[in-house]
Amino acid sequence: MGLTKTLLFLVFCCQRYILLLGYCSMDGEGQQISLLDGVEDRFGGIVVNLMEVESMTVEDFDAKLDASLKAWKDQGKKGIWIKLPRELSSLVDTAIKKGFTYHHAENEYVMLTSWLPEPPSTLPCNASHRIGIGAFVLNKNGEMLVVQENSGYFRDKNVWKVPTGTIKEGESIWAGAVREVKEETDIDAEFVEVLAFMESHQAVWQRKTDIFFVCELEASTFEIKKQDSEIYAAKWMPVEEYVNQPFHNKKGNEMFKLIANICLKRSRDKYTGFVLTTDSPKKSLYCSVDHANLLNETADQASTSL
Amino acid sequence: MGLTKTLLFLVFCCQRYILLLGYCSMDGEGQQISLLDGVEDRFGGIVVNLMEVESMTVEDFDAKLDASLKAWKDQGKKGIWIKLPRELSSLVDTAIKKGFTYHHAENEYVMLTSWLPEPPSTLPCNASHRIGIGAFVLNKNGEMLVVQENSGYFRDKNVWKVPTGTIKEGESIWAGAVREVKEETDIDAEFVEVLAFMESHQAVWQRKTDIFFVCELEASTFEIKKQDSEIYAAKWMPVEEYVNQPFHNKKGNEMFKLIANICLKRSRDKYTGFVLTTDSPKKSLYCSVDHANLLNETADQASTSL
Repeated sequence: MGLTKTLLFLVFCCQRYILLLGYCSMDGEGQQISLLDGVEDRFGGIVVNLMEVESMTVEDFDAKLDASLKAWKDQGKKGIWIKLPRELSSLVDTAIKKGFTYHHAENEYVMLTSWLPEPPSTLPCNASHRIGIGAFVLNKNGEMLVVQENSGYFRDKNVWKVPTGTIKEGESIWAGAVREVKEETDIDAEFVEVLAFMESHQAVWQRKTDIFFVCELEASTFEIKKQDSEIYAAKWMPVEEYVNQPFHNKKGNEMFKLIANICLKRSRDKYTGFVLTTDSPKKSLYCSVDHANLLNETADQASTSL
Repeated sequence: MGLTKTLLFLVFCCQRYILLLGYCSMDGEGQQISLLDGVEDRFGGIVVNLMEVESMTVEDFDAKLDASLKAWKDQGKKGIWIKLPRELSSLVDTAIKKGFTYHHAENEYVMLTSWLPEPPSTLPCNASHRIGIGAFVLNKNGEMLVVQENSGYFRDKNVWKVPTGTIKEGESIWAGAVREVKEETDIDAEFVEVLAFMESHQAVWQRKTDIFFVCELEASTFEIKKQDSEIYAAKWMPVEEYVNQPFHNKKGNEMFKLIANICLKRSRDKYTGFVLTTDSPKKSLYCSVDHANLLNETADQASTSL
């Protein structure tokens, strides 16, 4: 074997050994323990995704996690993520006992994290907000769509309110407003503008923030068929009558009054909201309607007129 | 004992018995098992909060959960919530095995849910969004604050961008924008308006939506001291120079270009954004700046002028 070939062979052996180091460790009795299968993220951390693992005993996980944590610490890794499917819930306790905390959870999995270096941790935070919409829907007579609800805060308060709802995971604000109006009243309507939005802290699970977008919609059908499960009553109402409900003048309801006044202003006069400028399956941009008109010209014209 | 007293005594005994029924159940061998301590919610469900429980064995939890589920089903309860602190992680597996799923989790607890009647479940969804901000900060010369980052998408791209960041739990959009600018560049600035916002789906954990608010701020200090950990460089730059970076004309970067153009429009001409109308510790309302001027008059004037 020539010198070059010998060198190449040595390099090959070294690489194999280094690769092996990444996957195995020795236990106290000199037995080899394979490590958990982790992928590096771009922030110097490790992501272990066990979603495709069908079964693992607590003992096996315990030994692998010990060996892996040791290896990752030696390698200077920082944030460790373990995604455990519901089927492996028996392993949650082991990870928590070794210093992991819950990061977030969804129906089918729980995400656990551990920060190996000294604090502070710079792990990105969990989802922190829920998005709601209120739909200000006008018909051709300038009347607005109002409902009374069967449950929740407004139940038995005899207050007429705009259709409201929560944006689903992956749904756009404009699409959620259209969907809620259809579900609650069977009215077809098109999104026009976002008129305002309100942040309410500690509104969800006593800690998450709700952002409520007031959306104007234009109805294209007018015959109301209310949804029985959630809606007690639904009808078209003059905007002034809606605004002048005694509820809007009660102490503590100032925000509701402001929003009602925005709707009134919008129905009578110019009010500059945010319109949907561009929309793709993954991204939607909302900006001032006056400016969007310029952007809707050709790109070149827009960039010179800006 | 007179008839009235006898009747009252019987009613008292019945009440005690009914109350007892609510808290106890019999196991197969006729032994009494106390139920989990649950509170009714206003949607016909039960919330079991174990955050203050310091310890419970798996066997004890198993027996109590069986008995409780039977009792709740008999009572026609629907959504069952169990909030388990990190210290009781040994109980997670038992609940999952009995048909519970993860609902959400935070550092110190996991929330499990079960829907007892036939589907579909109407349980409210988990937090679904993360909120980001980009800060368009102008100094007295009409120059804007720009940075280059040490990590993430823009690393090594040689692109000057506006300071960006994620809103913390419980933080308002306007406050988050002010904080991020201070952290990244040491510039003090005041919130002026939201100029636009963009929704990006599947941007967080492959399923959550990010809403990015473009906020205009006005600087009150001008000497930049960059944060070394996140920021590679920071400076003041003419708005035209920022907009005309080659990055903004590359295919796929159309949204960035639109947002840059909004900043340019705003720096030269009238652009109607959303201003903070009212702000309290828990609620903030953002609406069209033109309309907010009216709302800032006295309430009576506002309601007549609307």
